[in-house]
Amino acid sequence: MIIIGEKINGTRKAVAQAIRERDAAFIKELAQSQAQAGSHYLDVNAGTSPEREPDDMAWLVETIQEACELPLCLDSANPKALKAGLALVNKTPIINSVSGEQPRIDGVLPLALEHKTGLILLALDDKVGIPATSEGRLEIVHRLVGLAKDGGLAEDQLHVDPLVTAISTGTNNGLITFDAIAKTRQAYPAAHITCGLSNISFGMPLRPLINQTFLGMCIMHGLDSAIVDPNDHQLLGVMLAAEMLVGKDKFCQNFSRAYRSGRIGPKTN
Amino acid sequence: MIIIGEKINGTRKAVAQAIRERDAAFIKELAQSQAQAGSHYLDVNAGTSPEREPDDMAWLVETIQEACELPLCLDSANPKALKAGLALVNKTPIINSVSGEQPRIDGVLPLALEHKTGLILLALDDKVGIPATSEGRLEIVHRLVGLAKDGGLAEDQLHVDPLVTAISTGTNNGLITFDAIAKTRQAYPAAHITCGLSNISFGMPLRPLINQTFLGMCIMHGLDSAIVDPNDHQLLGVMLAAEMLVGKDKFCQNFSRAYRSGRIGPKTN
Repeated sequence: MIIIGEKINGTRKAVAQAIRERDAAFIKELAQSQAQAGSHYLDVNAGTSPEREPDDMAWLVETIQEACELPLCLDSANPKALKAGLALVNKTPIINSVSGEQPRIDGVLPLALEHKTGLILLALDDKVGIPATSEGRLEIVHRLVGLAKDGGLAEDQLHVDPLVTAISTGTNNGLITFDAIAKTRQAYPAAHITCGLSNISFGMPLRPLINQTFLGMCIMHGLDSAIVDPNDHQLLGVMLAAEMLVGKDKFCQNFSRAYRSGRIGPKTN
Repeated sequence: MIIIGEKINGTRKAVAQAIRERDAAFIKELAQSQAQAGSHYLDVNAGTSPEREPDDMAWLVETIQEACELPLCLDSANPKALKAGLALVNKTPIINSVSGEQPRIDGVLPLALEHKTGLILLALDDKVGIPATSEGRLEIVHRLVGLAKDGGLAEDQLHVDPLVTAISTGTNNGLITFDAIAKTRQAYPAAHITCGLSNISFGMPLRPLINQTFLGMCIMHGLDSAIVDPNDHQLLGVMLAAEMLVGKDKFCQNFSRAYRSGRIGPKTN
C-alpha cells in the first residue's frame, strides 16, 4: 500500500496560516510526523490564490525537503504552481492530478510527461462531471491511461482514482466505486489505484467508521494507494489489517511490525 | 443481516455460574439487553457436562422466554440437550450445528428435520477436519445442504458456516474464507451465510480491529448472518456500514436509525 500523507494542505486553516506566515517549523513538523508514521509520499497543496500559489508551492517544497527525504505529491491544477514545484524537487514526484477536463489535459498532463513523474488520473471530465456508472468512469480512465502511456509514462507510474461519491446521495454509490476499482485493476494490473475515501461518508454520522469500513472493502477490490492522515491509527490499522486479510502480508509481518512500533493500536502519547 | 446474540454461553465464567446457581435474573438481563440491541435470535449454549446439559438447556430456554420473545439458537452437539430445548421453544429455533462429522449427522440433523428448524451447517468433517481449500469446504457444504434439503428444509432455513481459520497460521486463510463465502452465495442464493468471525485474529494483537475489518470484507462476499455481541457498538457499526456500502440499505435508513437510537456510535452510558 502506498500511503500519501495528506496533512500539508493549505485548505486546512492552520496550514494556510503557516504558509502565509512562512512558518517553516510548523510545516517541517507536519512533514516529519507523517514521515515517521510511514508515509511513502507527502501531498503538498498550497491551497492559495493562483497568483500566490507558485511562490507558496516553491516555499513548501523547499521547506519540506529540508525536513525529510520523502518524495512529494504536488497537488495543484495550476500549471505555474506545478512548474515551480517541479523545478525544486529532489526526487521524482507524483502530480495530483489530471482528469478528462480539457484544461488539465492541456496544462497538467504535458508537465507529467516532460518530467516523467507519477500521475494521479481522476475519472471525471468536463462533459458529464463524475459519470454515474462504473462503465462511464472506465471510459475516462481508458482515455487518460492511453494519453499517459502514449506520452511515455509506465503503467506503474499511474495512480487511477475511480472516484467516490457520497453513499447518502445514492444507495449504489459504494458498489459503483468497488466495480470501477475492480475493472481498473483488471485492465491495468501494474497501475496503482487510489481514492478520496472520505467522500463516501459525506452527510452521514459516524464518518470515520464508514470511511474505515469502506477502505477495507476498497482494498479487497484492488485499491493500493491512498491519500490519508498516516497518524490516524484506526484508519492505518484497518489498512494493514485489510492487506493482511487479502493475503498481501506474509506471516502477518507488516501488521505485527506496525503494532510493535506503535504505528497502529492505542496511541501512547 | 441476521444478528444472533452470543452472550448466553456457558463457556463464559459468569454465565456458567448463573446456570449453576439458577440465577434467572442474570440470564434474563442478558436476554433483554441483547434483544434491545437488535438481535434477531439469541444463542443458547449451556456449556455444561453431558449429564447436566439437558436440564440446564431446558432451564435456560424457559428463563429466556420469560424475558423476551426472540427465537432461539440452540447451541449444542448433544442430542439430549437439543431435545430438551426443542420441547420447550415457543418459536422455530435455529440448531447450532450440524457438520460433516458422523455423530452430528446421526444425532443432530434428524432433530432439525423433524422439527423443521433453522440449521447451521459447518464446513468440516471427521476425515480432514477443516479442509485447507475453499473447494474442500464447498464439497462438505454441498453434501450437508443436500442432506438438509432432501430432509425437507428450505434453503433459507440454512445458515452455512464456511469456517474461519487464523490468519496468523496461514497468509491465505482470509482469502480461503472469502472464496468459500462467495462460492456458497453463488450456489445457494437463498441460504444464509454465517461465520465465527473472531477465529481470524487468533494469536494476533488488536483482535477487535482485525475482526471488524474482516467482517466488512465477509459481508462484501455474501455473509448475511453472524453470531456476535449485539452490544459491541463498533462491530455492529461496521456491520451496518458494510451493508450500507454494498447497496443493501436504501437511503441509508438502517444505519441512520441505528445511530439515532444509540445502537451504534459512542455509548451514552
